[in-house]
Amino acid sequence: MSPEEANSLAQGVLAGERLALARALTQVENDTPAGRLILSETFPHTGRAHRIGVTGSPGTGKSSLVNLLARHFRQPPAGQAPRRVAVVAVDPSSPFTGGAILGDRIRMRDLTGDPGVFIRSMATRGSLGGLASATAGVVQLFDAAGFDVVLIETVGAGQAEVDIARLAHTTLVVEAPGLGDDIQAIKAGILEIADVLVINKADHPGVDGTERALRSMLEMAHPVRHEMHHHGQIETLHAYAAAPDPNAPLWIPPVLRTIATEGMGMPELMAAIARHKDYLQQSGDWQRRERFRLQAELDTLLQEALVARWRETVSAGVYQQAVDDLLRRKVSPHQAVSQLIGPA
Amino acid sequence: MSPEEANSLAQGVLAGERLALARALTQVENDTPAGRLILSETFPHTGRAHRIGVTGSPGTGKSSLVNLLARHFRQPPAGQAPRRVAVVAVDPSSPFTGGAILGDRIRMRDLTGDPGVFIRSMATRGSLGGLASATAGVVQLFDAAGFDVVLIETVGAGQAEVDIARLAHTTLVVEAPGLGDDIQAIKAGILEIADVLVINKADHPGVDGTERALRSMLEMAHPVRHEMHHHGQIETLHAYAAAPDPNAPLWIPPVLRTIATEGMGMPELMAAIARHKDYLQQSGDWQRRERFRLQAELDTLLQEALVARWRETVSAGVYQQAVDDLLRRKVSPHQAVSQLIGPA
Repeated sequence: MSPEEANSLAQGVLAGERLALARALTQVENDTPAGRLILSETFPHTGRAHRIGVTGSPGTGKSSLVNLLARHFRQPPAGQAPRRVAVVAVDPSSPFTGGAILGDRIRMRDLTGDPGVFIRSMATRGSLGGLASATAGVVQLFDAAGFDVVLIETVGAGQAEVDIARLAHTTLVVEAPGLGDDIQAIKAGILEIADVLVINKADHPGVDGTERALRSMLEMAHPVRHEMHHHGQIETLHAYAAAPDPNAPLWIPPVLRTIATEGMGMPELMAAIARHKDYLQQSGDWQRRERFRLQAELDTLLQEALVARWRETVSAGVYQQAVDDLLRRKVSPHQAVSQLIGPA
Repeated sequence: MSPEEANSLAQGVLAGERLALARALTQVENDTPAGRLILSETFPHTGRAHRIGVTGSPGTGKSSLVNLLARHFRQPPAGQAPRRVAVVAVDPSSPFTGGAILGDRIRMRDLTGDPGVFIRSMATRGSLGGLASATAGVVQLFDAAGFDVVLIETVGAGQAEVDIARLAHTTLVVEAPGLGDDIQAIKAGILEIADVLVINKADHPGVDGTERALRSMLEMAHPVRHEMHHHGQIETLHAYAAAPDPNAPLWIPPVLRTIATEGMGMPELMAAIARHKDYLQQSGDWQRRERFRLQAELDTLLQEALVARWRETVSAGVYQQAVDDLLRRKVSPHQAVSQLIGPA
């Protein structure tokens, strides 16, 4: 695709043209030069959408919940304007188990045909790191295209989900009764990123026990609840600058019960989401999360660029020789680095 | 700790001194300068240990299985020499749920007191990336200290486990009947790294269904089974050089049933592990995995060093200005990179 075509797609995205958006999404997902150009050109027009992450294990009914959330944003109570909604469904599990999410999409049929809704499913292509970065690009495009709300749906439990949840302003963690105590342990990391906890399928047996378990885990998680974790090699590059204001309002993640199939609990959930958005804006957390997210994106790009530039200065033969020397234990990894880029 | 003390600890590790090893492990876990020095000094003496990864969800009984594997390596059938065994138990879940692994450790009491066994539990400290790198260092120390077998136990399902499993020559994936089909989907990514599949608690109901599910998932996974995934920013730095020999023997991951609490299936499991080690050595995969692992380690260190050196050339103020410009949408992330490190 020529830069002129990419530019024309970017203009189409900004004008809210559906076909241009679909084509631009494909370029961004595949990380093409045109996709990167489109991201750069649309970037100045971003920062308005409310990004809502929805994560949870398979079996919690989180896809039905996302479906219902989208409908509620489209058909709000009297006196409120309908919001334009994009849904990004991400399945970071293996390519050969991509079936589940396609099945989920079928449930969203009643939303398609509504021009105020756009649904995009993303499956793993190559690395998990690549998926998180492609998802970030897709969310940015929806933001630039003027969607008021972007729902980012992920399967819970892994680091990829945490990375993707980091894109969100508001993160909903969906649980369901009866998935077993064993599984709760795995999910502990997810709790740290929860702004709202939803117990879906609340008519299933064991709901009281699930709520008790969640509340006690939340209490334990309290000290680290609002800390933003930023991992990876570059994490110490520059510490997160703005310290939270001790007088700022505090957000205690509510625990809500829903039955998505019957719409039970949805008004309360919508209200909690609206309250969290208000909280973010009043406390300064919206701005802090934006800064944190953009800084993380910048750090990743810097890291890639620094490695790419170094690559141009070294021949494959010299690099392979270093790996050979490592294998023969002639040098240690730190010594190999010194040989390749000079002493520190 | 002075470089002299670090050097003395390194010598103690190489001499197999238990106290020196314990102190060196602490330095390596905390990524201190002394720890890095110890890793460099002991590196030439590594490459002999058989690294066996054992991963699976909570509730599969994998800790009991690891316990039993250690005992079988210590007390082999007549005619075989006992092996020195190190156990590295890694729990990448949240810090505030570190209790489970401590409980598991109690079950290993019968192994402690045996000088041929060394057990080390690692919990998350800071980032997941840091945990994988600390684990790599700990495994290297055990290797240098002359342990014949290093068992690396992780809780299954996340990217961190996959990163840690990548340290192993042989990876056992442990399942149990009755953990639910929903959970199977999450584990699909783990199957790709399995060299041996173990269905523990094989006396529980549903074992036939679990075995059927695993075998059918294995068949689907077949095309990517032996591909080594190397993700992250640096993945395209240098492609993995040696193509697999089409005439080399092929490894089909066996599916075995065990009841760890009764020792049922252990001789078969030990035999499968021995067969896999033979396969690795005969096929050239042992060497290939070593090369792949060392190259990944080198790439990570290179990336860190390049970023650290760039950091020294830029003031915090200039960097923060770039982040501010991003927040105000005055520049795009790619433009900010060009401003910071010059045009590509």
